Parts: sequence; structure tokens; C-alpha cells
Amino acid sequence: MKTLNTPELIRRKREGRALDSEEILAFLDAYVKGTVPDYQMSAFLMAVFFRGMELEEAAMLTRVMIHSGRTYDLSDIEGPKVDKHSTGGVGDKISLILAPLAASLGLIVPMVSGRALGHTGGTLDKLDSIPGYRWALTEEEFKSQLKRIGCAIIGQTDDFVPADKKLYSLRDVTATVESIPLICASILSKKAASGTQALLMDVKTGSGAFMPTFEKSRELAQNLVKIGKVIGMPTVALLTRMDQPLGTTVGNALEVREVLEVLQGKGPADTRALTIRQCAEMLMLGGLQPDLATAEKKATLALDSGRALEHFIKWIEAQGGVPDMVDMPEILEISQDKQDFVATDAGFLISCDTRKVGVAANVLGAGRINVTDKVDHGVGFTVHKKPGDSVEKGDPLLTIHHRNGRGLDECLELLKSAYQIKDQTIELMPLIVKRIDS
Amino acid sequence: MKTLNTPELIRRKREGRALDSEEILAFLDAYVKGTVPDYQMSAFLMAVFFRGMELEEAAMLTRVMIHSGRTYDLSDIEGPKVDKHSTGGVGDKISLILAPLAASLGLIVPMVSGRALGHTGGTLDKLDSIPGYRWALTEEEFKSQLKRIGCAIIGQTDDFVPADKKLYSLRDVTATVESIPLICASILSKKAASGTQALLMDVKTGSGAFMPTFEKSRELAQNLVKIGKVIGMPTVALLTRMDQPLGTTVGNALEVREVLEVLQGKGPADTRALTIRQCAEMLMLGGLQPDLATAEKKATLALDSGRALEHFIKWIEAQGGVPDMVDMPEILEISQDKQDFVATDAGFLISCDTRKVGVAANVLGAGRINVTDKVDHGVGFTVHKKPGDSVEKGDPLLTIHHRNGRGLDECLELLKSAYQIKDQTIELMPLIVKRIDS
Repeated sequence: MKTLNTPELIRRKREGRALDSEEILAFLDAYVKGTVPDYQMSAFLMAVFFRGMELEEAAMLTRVMIHSGRTYDLSDIEGPKVDKHSTGGVGDKISLILAPLAASLGLIVPMVSGRALGHTGGTLDKLDSIPGYRWALTEEEFKSQLKRIGCAIIGQTDDFVPADKKLYSLRDVTATVESIPLICASILSKKAASGTQALLMDVKTGSGAFMPTFEKSRELAQNLVKIGKVIGMPTVALLTRMDQPLGTTVGNALEVREVLEVLQGKGPADTRALTIRQCAEMLMLGGLQPDLATAEKKATLALDSGRALEHFIKWIEAQGGVPDMVDMPEILEISQDKQDFVATDAGFLISCDTRKVGVAANVLGAGRINVTDKVDHGVGFTVHKKPGDSVEKGDPLLTIHHRNGRGLDECLELLKSAYQIKDQTIELMPLIVKRIDS
Repeated sequence: MKTLNTPELIRRKREGRALDSEEILAFLDAYVKGTVPDYQMSAFLMAVFFRGMELEEAAMLTRVMIHSGRTYDLSDIEGPKVDKHSTGGVGDKISLILAPLAASLGLIVPMVSGRALGHTGGTLDKLDSIPGYRWALTEEEFKSQLKRIGCAIIGQTDDFVPADKKLYSLRDVTATVESIPLICASILSKKAASGTQALLMDVKTGSGAFMPTFEKSRELAQNLVKIGKVIGMPTVALLTRMDQPLGTTVGNALEVREVLEVLQGKGPADTRALTIRQCAEMLMLGGLQPDLATAEKKATLALDSGRALEHFIKWIEAQGGVPDMVDMPEILEISQDKQDFVATDAGFLISCDTRKVGVAANVLGAGRINVTDKVDHGVGFTVHKKPGDSVEKGDPLLTIHHRNGRGLDECLELLKSAYQIKDQTIELMPLIVKRIDS
């Protein structure tokens, strides 16, 4: 191994030249071990922000991160391992439907999920609204459950991709989060370490998306697909609409209620359609279905026949959650304090600043503003009107489920500035904007 | 004072937007106090590398740095305080002549100097070759000497512009040295803290200069002049030739010998001319002379009459050095081990990679490669041929003064690759390339 000249490596990146794989490996490895200090890494990260990374560099970064800690070896589990990851959206509860649905059709779905910080919800927080659900499984429990049921959603342990934890904490306080190669390495390293063989990426675009523009979302999707291929984890990306909350609920227990509806063959059209499409893509990635149309039919049938729901119940029960949730929806604690947010004009709802809607839900307690905030699983929104809908003055646009008025005023202010009603409708973004594969 | 949101400040700079004065103040202040950690500062510095700083930002940064530690208040000393600073060159010994020369003509020259690291020499290292010279004066000694003699060259104490020390150490290991606003703030803060009222900058350009291109040297000079004006320290910059060593000596004791020659009205033409011009500029900056021609006459006369030499002896004696150096030049210990570096072709010496010549002198021990290296004051070069000179095969281009052959082979290799002889001469850079004032 070469001797590490860190300032020289930073200078090279600063000048827009690439580091070779051996250098990336040595540099990252030294950083994880603590011999390269944070102040050199943050300068390097800022140089990456400005100069980017070549495909091979980003792939090597991803590989080093994967092997920085524990990885799950699922090779002794039969069946194709295919996972899904979303860049995060408001009201995006699809993982909770998709994991058991895909498993019911023969895939192994080893989901390692995180909590949310920012304007979007986190899968673990949604699962926490199910009494008894236990996301801290041992490796043995995780693998044994995948063998028996085909899906599991667990939290990250401290030794899971520690390089990502260390890098992300640093990026967060040094304004170096918004760099596509760094985002790709962060996402893909965690997915690869979970043991999946292939990945479906749901990259959101629109006002509630992590990336600020369509072009940036597309660039992220393209890079995820390319790097996924280089590291040997075939990846397909769907660019999907996030210019409005997904489905009709925002907030943890409320969203689980919507999950149960979709699993019963009901639920809002967009949540259902996106779930079916994602499941179909996963089935194709796993080699279980030959084409999209057939795969979508299979997924639709599994939802409508109750097969996916059956799988959901088995999964929740396996992880300690109450299995009879479907028959006793009141087990999901949803606050009884409600207030409608109504239209102040007649016309068409033409746009909705989805980021603000997400923040408005956080203000009620549905998410975290700071990492130490406690989440209130019972608050959030029920959505009545979607962009494109016609509204009368006084129509409720959504119902706010708050807790004793906590955050209500600020929430209302945010919603007022988020929603726009005009006398003419506009062209809407399709649910699936683009599909990108290698 | 606003609450400091450091990631937000870094993000703003990253996006090319300016910070206001209050923000720069709060940010730097917190950094110096240690509440902003190195890893946030280094990300900020890298963003500054890419995005630059507006004039007001750089000026505020300079002001905050000035006041980060001890400053010398020279207001009770009569006479205009004017200092000179050079960006560093090979064979640049002018400060040792200029300080007593300018003082002999009525200026107060409060020089606080540093040691060199890199390919150029440091004023303190040159002074260290004078037996007894003491550069660690107390503030009282410094001021009392300025009152009596008009000049002093001292070293930096730990509490002198500590913000610069802290920032420079960080920049050095994070590849963020080469940023013009940061270089300007570093230079100007130290000069202003020394108590000078006006500043003459000698910005070198050419193969031995700190800045890699003429354009960058000019940009640095322009920024020094502009920022100097904003912080209330009138600054004039001369862009001067550094495509060859200055004068005929490189190395500490050797250079002091050249200093003595110039002070006796002799010495190489370029060292003498540049000294006279710099002194004249300082006299004008101090308001003591009305125009360049008159000022240069005064400076020339002071050199030729022995007036400057007399002042030099007083100064050296005041700081503990041997005063009878002129009559006993052997007091300067110069190694007796010599070897000529000769021309291998006949023709004209057309170029000389001056950075390599500087490094070649360091290899002998004349300077430092690492900060902890011990300097050998008795080694270096005597230069016989300058670019433009015609040479015969076998002519000595320079004499190498080494110590028992230490570093000699490497030195010779460097010199061989540094010097070029062709059969046609070329146009040479003038000694003073450009003058920049506000």
C-alpha cells in the first residue's frame, strides 16, 4: 500500500483529478480508523461537492463503506434477494406494503431502515406506531425470519456501515450533504451491506423531494443505477412524483391505517399503483417475472386476494407486533383532536408545496426537527384534496390530527403558504415520471 | 450578536454568496476560541478556495485576525511607520538592507518576520547567521529600539495573530493554502498587527515565485492593495522578477555577505536596484518624499555614503549581533567545501527554474524541508551567471558551498534540470514588472 499523503489527495480532488481505487481505499480506511482526522475529510468532501467523483471513484468509495462494518450474508437463503429504497417523501408508506407483498410472490426482502430527520417520515417511526413491533433483531433472528417469511424490516445497528454514520455526521455539519456521489455511496453501501442482490430505487422528484430539481433527481437516479452496476448490485430507478403527499395520509399511525387499506385491496389509487409498479420491478429484478405487465398482474392479484395481507400479518407477528391489527384498527392510536384545513377560495387545487406539508406534520410532532425529538405517532394529516381536484370555498383540503393544539398555529401557517387554488387547472406530473436502468 | 449557524454559513459560501461582517466576526471568533471545530473551518476554507471572498469579507477576515492576539501600538513613536513584505523569493535578502536604509532616511520600520518553509529562505534564518543576533525582543525592547534606531526585525511570539497560526496550520494540511483572499488576510493581518501604518508589498512573479503564474501574482497584488486600503493600511505592490535568484548569493551567511556589500555601495546590480526602488516607494508611502526620482536619489545616496551601513551596524548591535562584522567578514561562517556547477554547453543561459534552485539549496541544508529541520547557515550558492549571460562550455554557473558533501548529488541533479543553455538569447523579464497602487 502506498504511503498516504492526505493533503496531496485533497489537492488532487480540488483540482478535479480522480483518485485511484487504492488511494480511495487507503484514505477512507484511515478515516474510519481515525488516523485521518475529520478536518481533512471535510475539506475533501467539500472538494468532492465542487468537483464530483468519477464512476470508479464513487464505486470504490461505496465498496469501502460496505466493508467498514457488519454485512449480512444471505447466501444460504434460497430465492432472489431484492430490496427497495426511497429517497424519502411525504406520506410514503410503501415499504410497509411492498415488503410483505414482494415476499408473498417469492422474493427475499431484507430491509434495513433508518429513522427520518428532515421533512420526510422514516419507516422505523411508522413501524413504531404498531404496538409491540421490534425492529432490533439479532442477525440470527433476521436471517431466520427471512428464511421463513421472506421479509423483515429492521433498524441499523452501530456496526452497520459505520463509515456512513461517521461520514454522514460530518457532512451534516459541514454543508456537504448535497453531493450526488456521496449520496449514492451512502444509499448503496447500506443496501449492499444488508445482503440484497438487486435494488429498486424510488427517486422522488418535485417540491417534496430530497433533490431540489428534476434534473438533480434524474442525475441522482442515473448515478445510482451506474454505481449499482459497477459494484455488482443491479439497480433500477423509478423517478416518481413528490409534488404532493403520496396517498391520503401523512403521519405514522395514520399511514399504517392506509397500509392496511391497500393490503385489503382498497386504499388511494396512487399508493396502490406505485406499490404495484414497484413490486413488479422487483419481481423482474429478481428474475421471477418476464415482463412488466405480467408482473403487475401478479402484484395486483396478491393485493386483491388477501395474499399480501396474510404475509403482512405473519411478518408483523414475527417481529412482535399485534397480529390482529386489521380487525382492531383502534389499536393504532390516532389523536382525537382534529381540525379541518379548508379552502378559502373556489377553483382548482393547482399546487401544494410538499416540503412545507412535511414540515407542517413535523411541527405537530409527527417527525423530528432535532435528532433527539420524540415522535408523536398519533398526529398528522388526512388528505381530502389532491392537485387537480376542484374545490368549493370551505371544502376541507385536509384534516389535521393534532395533540391538544401542539404546533397547530404554526402548522396552519405552513399549510396556508403551501396550498394554491386557481380558477384554471394545470397539467399534472405523472405518478411515474421516468424509469432508468443500465 | 446573531446565533451562529455554522453549517448554514458554510452552505452560503459554498453557493457563492457573501457573509456579512458580523457573521465573519462571529465565525472566526468562535473558531479561535475553539467552539467552531477544525472540521467546519476546513470545509469553509475549501468553499472559499472555490468561491473566493468579496472585498468586504476579506477585509473583515483580516481585521478579526489582527485582533485575535497581541498588537503593537506604536502611536507614541514619532515618524511614519512603513513596512515591507515579500511573498518570498530565492536569494531575497533585501529586508536586511532595506530596514536600516529606510530607517536612516526617517522611516520607522517595525518588521515582524517569520521563518521559511518551502523553497524560499526566511529573514530570521538569515539573521541567525549573524553571531549573537537576538530576534526575540520584548514589546518594550522592540518599541524602545524603534524609537532610538527606527528599525527592528523580530520574530513572532505565540500570541501574535494566533488566528493566522491556527488557520495556517489547518490550511497547510487541508490543501487550502492557495486561496488569494486567505493569503491576503494572512499577510496583511500580521503586518497590521506589527503597528505599521503603510505597507510596500513585493509580490514575486516567475518560476521561483509563490504564485504559479503572472496572472495569479497580479491578482494577489491587486487584492493586497485593495484590502490594505479598506482596512486603513495604504498598500502599494511591486510585481518583481523571480525567474532567477535575486543577487549573487543563495543561503543564509552568504546572503548576509551580499547584504554587507550592498550596504557598502557595491553588490550586484539587481539587489541594489530593487532595494533602492523599494526604499523609494516606502519613503513615498510615508510621505517623506514627493516623487519616485527624488526618493530613489535619497536612497542611493544613503547606500553610497555609508549612512545606511552605519544604521545597519547600530541596529545589529542593538539586537545583540556582532557590530564589527564589516571589518571581520570571517565572522560569517561559510563552509569551505566548494564545488562548481559548470555549463555543459556553450551559448546563452536562457532560463533557470528558480524553484528548483531554491529546493537545491534546501537540500544542502540552507532551508527546511520539514518544520523541525535544522538549518545550516554556512551552505548555499554563489551565482556567477544570470539568464541572458553568454557562457562557454566549462564555465562555472554557480559555486556550491556544501558541508562535507551533504545533499550534493541531489543538489547537482536539481541544478542540472533547472538550468537551460541555448544558442540564442531570449527576452528577459524586467526587474520590476508592474506597480500596483489604489
